[in-house]
Amino acid sequence: MRVEIWSDINCPWCYIGKARFERALETFPHRADVEVVHRSFELDARAPHQARPVVPLLAAKYGMGLEQAEAAEQRIAETARAEGLAYVRAGRDAANSFDMHRMLHFAAEHGRQAALLDLLYRANFAEEGSAFAPGRLVELAVEAGLDGTEAARVLADRAAYADAVREDEATASAMGATGVPFFVFDRRLGVSGAQPAETFTAALEQAWDSRTVLPLIGGGGEDREGGEACGPEGCAVPQR
Amino acid sequence: MRVEIWSDINCPWCYIGKARFERALETFPHRADVEVVHRSFELDARAPHQARPVVPLLAAKYGMGLEQAEAAEQRIAETARAEGLAYVRAGRDAANSFDMHRMLHFAAEHGRQAALLDLLYRANFAEEGSAFAPGRLVELAVEAGLDGTEAARVLADRAAYADAVREDEATASAMGATGVPFFVFDRRLGVSGAQPAETFTAALEQAWDSRTVLPLIGGGGEDREGGEACGPEGCAVPQR
Repeated sequence: MRVEIWSDINCPWCYIGKARFERALETFPHRADVEVVHRSFELDARAPHQARPVVPLLAAKYGMGLEQAEAAEQRIAETARAEGLAYVRAGRDAANSFDMHRMLHFAAEHGRQAALLDLLYRANFAEEGSAFAPGRLVELAVEAGLDGTEAARVLADRAAYADAVREDEATASAMGATGVPFFVFDRRLGVSGAQPAETFTAALEQAWDSRTVLPLIGGGGEDREGGEACGPEGCAVPQR
Repeated sequence: MRVEIWSDINCPWCYIGKARFERALETFPHRADVEVVHRSFELDARAPHQARPVVPLLAAKYGMGLEQAEAAEQRIAETARAEGLAYVRAGRDAANSFDMHRMLHFAAEHGRQAALLDLLYRANFAEEGSAFAPGRLVELAVEAGLDGTEAARVLADRAAYADAVREDEATASAMGATGVPFFVFDRRLGVSGAQPAETFTAALEQAWDSRTVLPLIGGGGEDREGGEACGPEGCAVPQR
């Protein structure tokens, strides 16, 4: 079974929802047969690449005072800590996450996506320094086990994995996602938002129990006229 | 709708089946909403990289004489020509296709997969020279619009896109594919073998008509307790 999780590094509920989902997955009896895939979703594709402190951004976005915005951020931080997640006391910033998503697709090619995603969340939510500082993304890629020269090349080439990011976003949109985190189980069941772990447990069970065998046209008929195929034993040959 | 086609460059029925599928797709009213994706399937993952003429291979595999094997190859060639496909008169060879599949995944990253796949089939089935000749794969990659230096680097790095090939093969196996071509419509309907175009038309219609809206847990409840999310308008904040 495949669980695709659309999320953005800038999204605290993605950080929290991921932990809740992983708590559910830990106790899921078929967890060895569950593949988890990160999918890209930019909350603000037009955000500047220069990082800005989150609290003033929140204040401007919601039309609230800085103290109120700070209190909102602290309530989210407390929710994260209640999940056992580290969360910086102050100074979290935000910026354009397109390059992070591109790098996550590059990491996927090398089996390092999950490692890099964890490091990106940690860098953005749990560490004092900015995850968006120059050079930081390549550092994190190397920490995730990727080749630094290749990672720097991916970063420098704005087209690299850009289509993969946009394809993820188009798919999310086609499935009705308007926000993140957005969890999709085998493309047959979706869960929107940082639901409690119990909801993810129920979704895992429901999706597992409703697995279907693929209805197949022409299966097992390699030698049948008009449905010829090649297999490990060779290719069908038209009879005449 | 997404149609995934598992195939191998060494597989004549994949070459033929692809043409039949494309004929069906051409007249499908929703063809603009159909995305076609190549998936890797090696008919013989242990085949040597050094190309060998197909006819003696067939003779050895089926325990038949060279003349019989030649006749079998000619019957397949005639079937291909009946689909309007060019097919070499003689001398087709076969070899390990792992590098071709890796290159197709690299091409996918740059939106050039369909172009490269067509060129690979043409090189293997329609041209006198060997598709497996040294340097030929990079030449074809360049012809498909890829950067030659990058393509050469992908070819030289045996690990590049290797996981993507193996993941495709594991997925095919999990879905019950034992041979190719193997067509999967939105992971909800499969078609095995080079079926007639009419069968693909019926499969496209059936898959299209049975599209389901994703059942969603927690949709539209961004501010609901326990299912918080972030969207373009910002993030939910826990109330207290």
